[in-house]
Amino acid sequence: MVDSKSAKETDLTQVRHENPRVGILMGSASDWPIMKAAAQALENLEIPWEARVISAHRTPERLTEYLRTAEDRGVECLICGAGHAAHLAGVTAAQTLIPVLGVPIASSALQGFDALLATVQMPGGIPVGTLAVGSSGAKNAALLAAAFFARHDDQVRKRLAEFREKQSAAVPETPY
Amino acid sequence: MVDSKSAKETDLTQVRHENPRVGILMGSASDWPIMKAAAQALENLEIPWEARVISAHRTPERLTEYLRTAEDRGVECLICGAGHAAHLAGVTAAQTLIPVLGVPIASSALQGFDALLATVQMPGGIPVGTLAVGSSGAKNAALLAAAFFARHDDQVRKRLAEFREKQSAAVPETPY
Amino acid sequence: MVDSKSAKETDLTQVRHENPRVGILMGSASDWPIMKAAAQALENLEIPWEARVISAHRTPERLTEYLRTAEDRGVECLICGAGHAAHLAGVTAAQTLIPVLGVPIASSALQGFDALLATVQMPGGIPVGTLAVGSSGAKNAALLAAAFFARHDDQVRKRLAEFREKQSAAVPETPY
Amino acid sequence: MVDSKSAKETDLTQVRHENPRVGILMGSASDWPIMKAAAQALENLEIPWEARVISAHRTPERLTEYLRTAEDRGVECLICGAGHAAHLAGVTAAQTLIPVLGVPIASSALQGFDALLATVQMPGGIPVGTLAVGSSGAKNAALLAAAFFARHDDQVRKRLAEFREKQSAAVPETPY
Amino acid sequence: MVDSKSAKETDLTQVRHENPRVGILMGSASDWPIMKAAAQALENLEIPWEARVISAHRTPERLTEYLRTAEDRGVECLICGAGHAAHLAGVTAAQTLIPVLGVPIASSALQGFDALLATVQMPGGIPVGTLAVGSSGAKNAALLAAAFFARHDDQVRKRLAEFREKQSAAVPETPY
Amino acid sequence: MVDSKSAKETDLTQVRHENPRVGILMGSASDWPIMKAAAQALENLEIPWEARVISAHRTPERLTEYLRTAEDRGVECLICGAGHAAHLAGVTAAQTLIPVLGVPIASSALQGFDALLATVQMPGGIPVGTLAVGSSGAKNAALLAAAFFARHDDQVRKRLAEFREKQSAAVPETPY
Amino acid sequence: MVDSKSAKETDLTQVRHENPRVGILMGSASDWPIMKAAAQALENLEIPWEARVISAHRTPERLTEYLRTAEDRGVECLICGAGHAAHLAGVTAAQTLIPVLGVPIASSALQGFDALLATVQMPGGIPVGTLAVGSSGAKNAALLAAAFFARHDDQVRKRLAEFREKQSAAVPETPY
Amino acid sequence: MVDSKSAKETDLTQVRHENPRVGILMGSASDWPIMKAAAQALENLEIPWEARVISAHRTPERLTEYLRTAEDRGVECLICGAGHAAHLAGVTAAQTLIPVLGVPIASSALQGFDALLATVQMPGGIPVGTLAVGSSGAKNAALLAAAFFARHDDQVRKRLAEFREKQSAAVPETPY
Repeated sequence: MVDSKSAKETDLTQVRHENPRVGILMGSASDWPIMKAAAQALENLEIPWEARVISAHRTPERLTEYLRTAEDRGVECLICGAGHAAHLAGVTAAQTLIPVLGVPIASSALQGFDALLATVQMPGGIPVGTLAVGSSGAKNAALLAAAFFARHDDQVRKRLAEFREKQSAAVPETPY
Repeated sequence: MVDSKSAKETDLTQVRHENPRVGILMGSASDWPIMKAAAQALENLEIPWEARVISAHRTPERLTEYLRTAEDRGVECLICGAGHAAHLAGVTAAQTLIPVLGVPIASSALQGFDALLATVQMPGGIPVGTLAVGSSGAKNAALLAAAFFARHDDQVRKRLAEFREKQSAAVPETPY
Repeated sequence: MVDSKSAKETDLTQVRHENPRVGILMGSASDWPIMKAAAQALENLEIPWEARVISAHRTPERLTEYLRTAEDRGVECLICGAGHAAHLAGVTAAQTLIPVLGVPIASSALQGFDALLATVQMPGGIPVGTLAVGSSGAKNAALLAAAFFARHDDQVRKRLAEFREKQSAAVPETPY
Repeated sequence: MVDSKSAKETDLTQVRHENPRVGILMGSASDWPIMKAAAQALENLEIPWEARVISAHRTPERLTEYLRTAEDRGVECLICGAGHAAHLAGVTAAQTLIPVLGVPIASSALQGFDALLATVQMPGGIPVGTLAVGSSGAKNAALLAAAFFARHDDQVRKRLAEFREKQSAAVPETPY
Repeated sequence: MVDSKSAKETDLTQVRHENPRVGILMGSASDWPIMKAAAQALENLEIPWEARVISAHRTPERLTEYLRTAEDRGVECLICGAGHAAHLAGVTAAQTLIPVLGVPIASSALQGFDALLATVQMPGGIPVGTLAVGSSGAKNAALLAAAFFARHDDQVRKRLAEFREKQSAAVPETPY
Repeated sequence: MVDSKSAKETDLTQVRHENPRVGILMGSASDWPIMKAAAQALENLEIPWEARVISAHRTPERLTEYLRTAEDRGVECLICGAGHAAHLAGVTAAQTLIPVLGVPIASSALQGFDALLATVQMPGGIPVGTLAVGSSGAKNAALLAAAFFARHDDQVRKRLAEFREKQSAAVPETPY
Repeated sequence: MVDSKSAKETDLTQVRHENPRVGILMGSASDWPIMKAAAQALENLEIPWEARVISAHRTPERLTEYLRTAEDRGVECLICGAGHAAHLAGVTAAQTLIPVLGVPIASSALQGFDALLATVQMPGGIPVGTLAVGSSGAKNAALLAAAFFARHDDQVRKRLAEFREKQSAAVPETPY
Repeated sequence: MVDSKSAKETDLTQVRHENPRVGILMGSASDWPIMKAAAQALENLEIPWEARVISAHRTPERLTEYLRTAEDRGVECLICGAGHAAHLAGVTAAQTLIPVLGVPIASSALQGFDALLATVQMPGGIPVGTLAVGSSGAKNAALLAAAFFARHDDQVRKRLAEFREKQSAAVPETPY
């Protein structure tokens, strides 16, 4: 179940997956409260993941190093969250063939308009699939990756279908 | 090669693929000049596609019908382009487990800000991977789908890698 | 009187009308604090209403089911409130001939700009009459519906005229 | 049929209806190219209308005079189009119980953002149902009025249903 | 001195001037915390003023009545503050030859962008001199009126010059 | 008459007034097509004016020199038009007690949003009365100055009243 | 080290450098909490600086006086922070050949959009190098000045390189 | 003289400087019509420059290669122009100690708002001095670099001072 409000929420900081299929990258450790929504959704779908702090600006070489091994290690999708003039998703996409999803984070005075435009408005040739600003977007990035995985992974497909059913069922009939 | 400026550009309107892997949906036939950039990119990568005009507002039932068969027919990704208060991508995503990518189109007075926000700001639970406003976004939607396909399709992977190399090589050293 | 500050404010959660003329739909139960302003205004005008949580994205089938009976049950207007990329009003309007009013809700980082544009910028052919972002808009949606009803309902017309008079009279001469 | 591209489009400037049900008001004669989309849609639905140029700023008294007779003459809905800091819809709504729909027009450097916000962001108590910027919005204002009329007018209801069916049928299957 | 932080700040709510030169109008009593900055600045410059709550939407007739006597009573400038789709300044300017200054107030979710555009973007022919959003704007409206008055009023001119000098002198050399 | 479309429009470039009451300043000669609307309106009201190109950035000393004599020469109001990060109005207001009106000009890619915010959002203490972006704003700046002058100038008052009457009368009843 | 979180952070208010190379100007003492990030970064790089409150609007003459001596005293760069319609950087650049960097501050209702556009959108001929809104921008202004100084100052160059290395090293591998 | 309208404008495409002090980088050859304003300004100031097309996204390795030699070759400043989600300036700044200036280019539907925010909103630690959107910004980037160079280069200083004087002198007194 991909519901971050579930009673027995995993302590994500204790999770270590051997062969992560999704890499969750973020520009700063302070982005974790937003980006953990992606980790939680993946955990609920039993898709192994890993999380890294990689700043496009402060640690560009770390990004290159990370990407050198990511594909070999089986990483199939990268979810990149960043704020301000969010370059992380675009710069990542420029260096790898692994598909990249971007999550804009509202961490500047401009409330995420800057991160949104800096993530989504990629020029033709290097795509970044962009989700909504904030934790809704982080959760949805995980769900979108899962939807692509589902084609070749019946377990993920089954869990995703269940999640969608439970999600629908969890909507109350009346608001009070 | 995914370059819409290539000398022998395909006449896309004559293309009919038997088993399309990507469905390109658009809210109006007038969106085709933008959305054909997705078709061209897929054609260049030899990924079979189909294009349909399906308005979320004027033909909601047609959407439901289309989706009823799409998964069975092997459609693995849907690329939805729309302008104004672009609902097509979100409404599609709500009705299928096939992953949905959205392309905002600047067809109103507000120059695409409306279509961008109406596409990308999906609430948590139903993801739409959004690309840039306009034909850059349409092309990139195709490339992003291809990147996901590449994991299980060596031919697509090879062509995508070649496209990226050619794209890099096509950048001139100096601007004149 | 349509004044939500009135001394003996109704406990709206206890209200059940047999033949509601207005359906208040909202994408999430968390939208109720905004949307109850519509319910209160209708209650004050003695126009029967009902409230439902129907997510355009998480429960699309529930919307179709609801609309199947709404017209037969005599619902004459639908007021749809949603946040983020607010599709509820547009998707509802696409499936019914009942007139639809939209209330954008500021529930994302972008402060309602996304919900406003996603609600109001409907393409030609499927109208959504959009009110202001937030509870002012919810209240006004009720009042606009009442104004349309008044043509054929002298009681509503009388109460609306009284409301407007009281509203004018309640504006103090000086600000202190 | 509410299709402004129909072969035998009426010469709207020759139309004079005896008992108009809808008044189309606009701030300037230069708004007519936009606002005629409302007139055409009403004409197609055989709903009698009248069009007036009434500037909220340059002819405030003309507005008061017009409204003095409008209700008595049977006008059931006012559609107000204006650009810049569009006040016409709000000022009209302040002076009448007739329901008011607003159409923002993009006639300033700010491309309709000003007219949109000045029309839709009405404070609680005086509603304006706002449609999209430009001629899509004008057409939709007519359709929304018709939807409200349909409740008590089987002819309008029938024509509206036909329009919607034809509109759906007119969407081509493929974009080329 | 026009400094609202002055030690012996007037209790503005006790002030009653016989022959006010400036009328401070506001759409709601809740705008007073912003608009009192205009009153304070005028009080400091010893320019008599009066404050009224007049809603362009809820009390349009009260505005007409107020304006009927304002010019005769010697009111030389009107300062109009309003939020949301702020129409007060424009509607006032449409009905009088007294110069009108507008103060947008950030009272909606859109943080004053709506009030700013609805106040400043007046079409040609009916001017509203607009100041900044919020209390800076309210204070400056008073100062601008005073600058116009100064031409024919040596006392105001002298006090304005003194205010400006004190204001300059009050700027510290260093920020700590 | 303040109508720039009048049959015998003055050749403004030939006008030289001995004792200008209004100084029209603009940041660049290329702003004249916009700012001449202010000149024309003043000319029609028979208020003497002068026009100067003074760049806040390229000729700051020229501004200081101009202001040194302006008040002595009887200039009673300054109308400042500028584009981009329009500083002219604010910088002028900082150096003089003459009231300053600002006209934002849409001369950059950002379509006047930059000039509007840079003109209107003055901090408390130094006011700039801002009009709409473009020639509507330039015309209205002249009319606002005239409204202030009218208090002590019966001729201006009479002409302004006539202009307003003619302006109202020139609004056609119907749009075609 | 340019890290404002360093354990032994300097008490900047006690710092007095004899021959400042950078002048930090701000429109109001209330801007210091933002602008001190520039001071701290310079202090850490051992680049002497001075801070002054100089309002472009309230103390224009103080700016002229300051600039008269700044170049002679060896000031090589000016960092100007201001909010609202931020004119300080542009006005400074207009009066000196010393390079000017601008820091927009979010002190109005419009959250820094006004200060950003008013600082960055300078017309051709008078440059202002603009940094991000807020303290990130203030810190970066110091770092950009240092980067220019580094060409002729091996000490600064060495410290800047060390800062960048430490900054990279301080990014944690994982976010928890 | 830094005036791109000068009679004997250089054919920039024929210029080859041996030891360029400024590198003008742009994301696409199509950016040259904007970026040549930087080249022309440098040429006029006799500051040697070079121009390269380097896409942050399509040729990330080319950027790394370029930067490997740039500092050794004596490049003292990099001017980076890009459109859409403009990452070039930020990515360049992340990899070098050479100071970086950014020029946003309006090449998408969003008219440069995307490029502006993606360039200027850099997080703390990696600065990009950003100029205005478009050719004004390109010209000003050159002038800002020159202002920093002037400290240690009397020739540049002299030419810059002359440019400023000529620029001031070229402003006409009146607009016609």
